[in-house]
Amino acid sequence: MTDNTKKIAALPIEAPAYEAVTDLISDYAHALDDGQLDRWPGFFTETALYHVTTRENHDQGLPIGIIRCVGRGMMIDRVKAFHTANIFEPHHYNHLLGPARIGPGRTAGAVASRCNFQIVRIMEDGRMDLFATGKYLDEIVLESGVAKFRERFVVLDSRNVDILMVVPL
Amino acid sequence: MTDNTKKIAALPIEAPAYEAVTDLISDYAHALDDGQLDRWPGFFTETALYHVTTRENHDQGLPIGIIRCVGRGMMIDRVKAFHTANIFEPHHYNHLLGPARIGPGRTAGAVASRCNFQIVRIMEDGRMDLFATGKYLDEIVLESGVAKFRERFVVLDSRNVDILMVVPL
Amino acid sequence: MTDNTKKIAALPIEAPAYEAVTDLISDYAHALDDGQLDRWPGFFTETALYHVTTRENHDQGLPIGIIRCVGRGMMIDRVKAFHTANIFEPHHYNHLLGPARIGPGRTAGAVASRCNFQIVRIMEDGRMDLFATGKYLDEIVLESGVAKFRERFVVLDSRNVDILMVVPL
Repeated sequence: MTDNTKKIAALPIEAPAYEAVTDLISDYAHALDDGQLDRWPGFFTETALYHVTTRENHDQGLPIGIIRCVGRGMMIDRVKAFHTANIFEPHHYNHLLGPARIGPGRTAGAVASRCNFQIVRIMEDGRMDLFATGKYLDEIVLESGVAKFRERFVVLDSRNVDILMVVPL
Repeated sequence: MTDNTKKIAALPIEAPAYEAVTDLISDYAHALDDGQLDRWPGFFTETALYHVTTRENHDQGLPIGIIRCVGRGMMIDRVKAFHTANIFEPHHYNHLLGPARIGPGRTAGAVASRCNFQIVRIMEDGRMDLFATGKYLDEIVLESGVAKFRERFVVLDSRNVDILMVVPL
Repeated sequence: MTDNTKKIAALPIEAPAYEAVTDLISDYAHALDDGQLDRWPGFFTETALYHVTTRENHDQGLPIGIIRCVGRGMMIDRVKAFHTANIFEPHHYNHLLGPARIGPGRTAGAVASRCNFQIVRIMEDGRMDLFATGKYLDEIVLESGVAKFRERFVVLDSRNVDILMVVPL
């Protein structure tokens, strides 16, 4: 490591403000509720990790996931795949979020958040069912001054996962 | 427009504080949970719009609503009608709200809010069912220094609406 | 009352800050979600009251409760009983909380909070059901500088209560 690097590392790194964090978490949910999948990758940093797993795997520290995207490019590909392979009966979602429990992140400039969710799925004919429950475990940082997910773990309570589920949660 | 009017319009208009907005949204839900329907009109400004519609109609910009009240007087009439025509099996509600996403309103002094909800209905015998999900789209202003809804759109996710539903949501 | 006591009573008593209150409420829910029952008594003051009742009893002012613990010692006993008498099919919970409506408590230094909840139960095989809905009515104070429940009333919406329910809510 050069002296130069040390100097850069020593600069204080600004963490996103409380309100920016809670707004990010809400906006993400509302975008998905609105079916605006194209907005989804934009909530993440360029090199972010998006990982959907079950509570069981997560508690055992297993790296196995149901969906794993590394980087915004991979997320954009996933959105494209969704648009071309939409075999679903039309439906949409209601993401109900609990309050975010916010604390310091793993590195300087990062905020950690834990937030429960319950997602209700509404079919075209009006049927509603509880689609998924779980928690979001997030690391949130500023990228060009905007709060983004550097990491979002979606930990599902149930191992019964709809195998056709390709939609971001 | 007279010079006088212009001067009045030029005065800064105070917007409700963040906490007053979130308290209003919570108090509204708790009043309905408590069955205190008489309190319901008091959460709105004198000339407020209360509009219940479906997601489908709302997305298409259709002005068709399931319930539409313009002004507090009309809301008071609705509460009276409810008291005289209560043909329901006894029940009550649990309004679970997501975090409010707050931003600037359409006019000076107004705050806009979007907030998801899930309402569970509990019948006298203890049965619980998911009654409605959707979002509140609000414009909130100060009326005599108190935060009130100038506009509350209740956008239901499902088109399956209980036709007997006259209770405020 | 001696002059001495008067002097002590006259000292300003610090109330927990808003963020400490909302963090306490979230941490309590997350600990139960995580199955960390041993942490449960630690969220209360030494002499706290934990009272689970139904909406019906609560509205009528009946002191009858489903579960009533007075003091942390009694809570610790309850946790022990749970560990030794665990006859349940394995399962866990997702506590979804609404926003806390916070105001002044009954005494100086106390904060009152009302917060809706919906608890989903997830069985080992993945089945999910809406286990309970209701509201938390809390009195929160500082104990050695840490926010704790001095009183937590869990008011269940439904009178249909699982008689095997010994788990804290």
